[in-house]
Amino acid sequence: MPDFEEIDYSVADGVATVVLDRPSRMNAFTGRMCDELVAACDAVDADDAVRALVVTGRGRAFCAGADLGGGGGTFDDRGREKAARYGEVDGVGRDRGGVVALRFAALQVPVIAAVNGPAVGVGATMTLPMDVRVAGASARFGFVFARRGIVPEAASSWFLPRVVGISRAMEWAMTGRVFGAREALEGGLVTHVVPDEDLLDTAYGLAREVAENTSPVSVAVTRHMLWSMLSAPSPWEAHALDSRAVVELGRDADAAEGVTAFLEKRPPAFPLRRTRDHTDLVPEWPRRPEGL
Amino acid sequence: MPDFEEIDYSVADGVATVVLDRPSRMNAFTGRMCDELVAACDAVDADDAVRALVVTGRGRAFCAGADLGGGGGTFDDRGREKAARYGEVDGVGRDRGGVVALRFAALQVPVIAAVNGPAVGVGATMTLPMDVRVAGASARFGFVFARRGIVPEAASSWFLPRVVGISRAMEWAMTGRVFGAREALEGGLVTHVVPDEDLLDTAYGLAREVAENTSPVSVAVTRHMLWSMLSAPSPWEAHALDSRAVVELGRDADAAEGVTAFLEKRPPAFPLRRTRDHTDLVPEWPRRPEGL
Amino acid sequence: MPDFEEIDYSVADGVATVVLDRPSRMNAFTGRMCDELVAACDAVDADDAVRALVVTGRGRAFCAGADLGGGGGTFDDRGREKAARYGEVDGVGRDRGGVVALRFAALQVPVIAAVNGPAVGVGATMTLPMDVRVAGASARFGFVFARRGIVPEAASSWFLPRVVGISRAMEWAMTGRVFGAREALEGGLVTHVVPDEDLLDTAYGLAREVAENTSPVSVAVTRHMLWSMLSAPSPWEAHALDSRAVVELGRDADAAEGVTAFLEKRPPAFPLRRTRDHTDLVPEWPRRPEGL
Repeated sequence: MPDFEEIDYSVADGVATVVLDRPSRMNAFTGRMCDELVAACDAVDADDAVRALVVTGRGRAFCAGADLGGGGGTFDDRGREKAARYGEVDGVGRDRGGVVALRFAALQVPVIAAVNGPAVGVGATMTLPMDVRVAGASARFGFVFARRGIVPEAASSWFLPRVVGISRAMEWAMTGRVFGAREALEGGLVTHVVPDEDLLDTAYGLAREVAENTSPVSVAVTRHMLWSMLSAPSPWEAHALDSRAVVELGRDADAAEGVTAFLEKRPPAFPLRRTRDHTDLVPEWPRRPEGL
Repeated sequence: MPDFEEIDYSVADGVATVVLDRPSRMNAFTGRMCDELVAACDAVDADDAVRALVVTGRGRAFCAGADLGGGGGTFDDRGREKAARYGEVDGVGRDRGGVVALRFAALQVPVIAAVNGPAVGVGATMTLPMDVRVAGASARFGFVFARRGIVPEAASSWFLPRVVGISRAMEWAMTGRVFGAREALEGGLVTHVVPDEDLLDTAYGLAREVAENTSPVSVAVTRHMLWSMLSAPSPWEAHALDSRAVVELGRDADAAEGVTAFLEKRPPAFPLRRTRDHTDLVPEWPRRPEGL
Repeated sequence: MPDFEEIDYSVADGVATVVLDRPSRMNAFTGRMCDELVAACDAVDADDAVRALVVTGRGRAFCAGADLGGGGGTFDDRGREKAARYGEVDGVGRDRGGVVALRFAALQVPVIAAVNGPAVGVGATMTLPMDVRVAGASARFGFVFARRGIVPEAASSWFLPRVVGISRAMEWAMTGRVFGAREALEGGLVTHVVPDEDLLDTAYGLAREVAENTSPVSVAVTRHMLWSMLSAPSPWEAHALDSRAVVELGRDADAAEGVTAFLEKRPPAFPLRRTRDHTDLVPEWPRRPEGL
């Protein structure tokens, strides 16, 4: 495990937690935070003991967006160190928000965002590939890019319309306005709004629901099926994929245990491990490309 | 019409009804039920007198999912008779939930699910290609596959995110939890929740709204346009398709009758028949592939 | 600027307004109105002073659909003058509803529909590529094509499921019923319902929110990113596109001004012009094809 400075990473009771941890800067996003988030995702995927991931922020914010400490030059990449470790795309360095978002999308376990206070800019877009966004009453969201003279990043032009529909996506991106938890709920950006003091309990409740009831292999394969079939041109692709997956998993020990436990009205104890079993069933997409 | 054992099929007043009919097993899904549902869809498509289809369950359930009578071996296909009639995909037999779901998607009339009680597993996923899902107050839904050690089937990894958005789809598939009509409504899985005693009236009301007001050819072509354009990369494909369809239908008798009836403020009497007229306008997808 | 007869076009305070202006015919759509709407969009795109467009209807309707003055022959194109100026697709003239819808989709500024009274047929479908639909309490919507013996046009088989989800799209298209502002809000067709007397204020409020706070170049590029990425097979395409866009815009004057104005807590004054700067960043789609 690398030494983290800008996030905190811990595991307990089958659930990993990442805390964005620059409270003096409202957890503003940096190149280092990007690297640490990728490393934390790698740690999650390598650890069969982790069944779900909760992401939240330290202090009064989730993530205030890019760190604007560079003033007017914040978004000018010239003179900055290139993020060579992530490779280039079309001759430019990969957008680091996208590096993080696509890494979250490729995780083998579900990710639950527990949004405390502002989640603005990349603080909002990094949550889009997460499975569930729970908002505390103080949460605020903003796709503010047009107000800063740039454009939505972190592949959010792809993710946002698929999460909230094209019309909400357009309204939020065109105005760039910051809005509260209620509008986020109405628009489908979050599925739960709770009092701030209940935020982490709600997030961990969802995480434990996964951890205590589901097959880790089923969850890993299902998560990748849903993301990849969102890109598939027709349901026939899904039919081919799930026909094969149901046959292969249906013959194995988790399917036997799942049905038996259900019939015996007891909690299941699934024997398979997602780091070892049926790893071929996870479609290539959205794994990270070579060099990323 | 084949002899049905596990469903009941009837037609009255322009509306066909399929009742899932194994009440002693909570209408659990079987290979035979699959075959009978496909045959019922064929009967609907062949009968110009049918303008809409209502699907519901006998007794206190809609469909409890796969029949788990096989215990821990339920999902193990080895030793079971292969569903050779539907062909294979990538060397394995086609998933029967998908056979049914894709047959519903290809229907020439709208399908309305009247969900009474539990609709779990394939009982939930088979409804996704239906046009409208109406829930009685006692309805319960569950995409429980990860709790059984398998994965979502019936091409639901393609359909579910397109019906409810990717975030709800992920939450329901990751937790595998069973949830009620209210959560289904909030998530967009159903569009109407009514008292149980009003369930069938509501479903038939929608079916009659189609039967009494619309051109059967328009409905057949429109249904296939919407499904196929959900797969199309850009609106230009839709523009090409509807430019042609509006010209061809605009010259024919239903367009004349539709406008005239509207101007005369009387119910329309459309002369065209969907089994015979403009059948070339239904795009290839999502018809069943050869051998299916 | 051409001489408009069936619409009214004006610009004030950075916001253009198009009023559909055939009140004696409930602003029913004609070939001439199509031409004038396209010309108005061209005027918007050519004018850096315009930051957003509001579209509304004169009198008690938004747009009652195709003008049915031709009676039963309304949709029969034979004997009518061909709309040769828009070219053909697959040997037939382009559907004029689609010409308008695709022109709105390609606009460089956001479009806000202020829906007063009925928006039926092409009156409903022409609003689907607009960014925000605001409804007055008297608004009514109908995708009535199946009741007229034709099919949804204006590329709405592509747009409608992406705006409201496939199930609402199917229900509205299959029944063809006319419904009110409340059902439109529940289904996600509109995002705001307000008293009729507040309709224009609400629409202009959104337009001014764009005009006063955002970079015109950011808005133009973002709008085209969202539409084009709705067509893209995976988020990797978006990652490639936004990596490049953030680098190019991040080095330029609007990004400097956007961050500086934010840090100085003052309104921004963006120097770039969308008619001149970074025009290469707008993806080819959804620009009009040659000849259109």
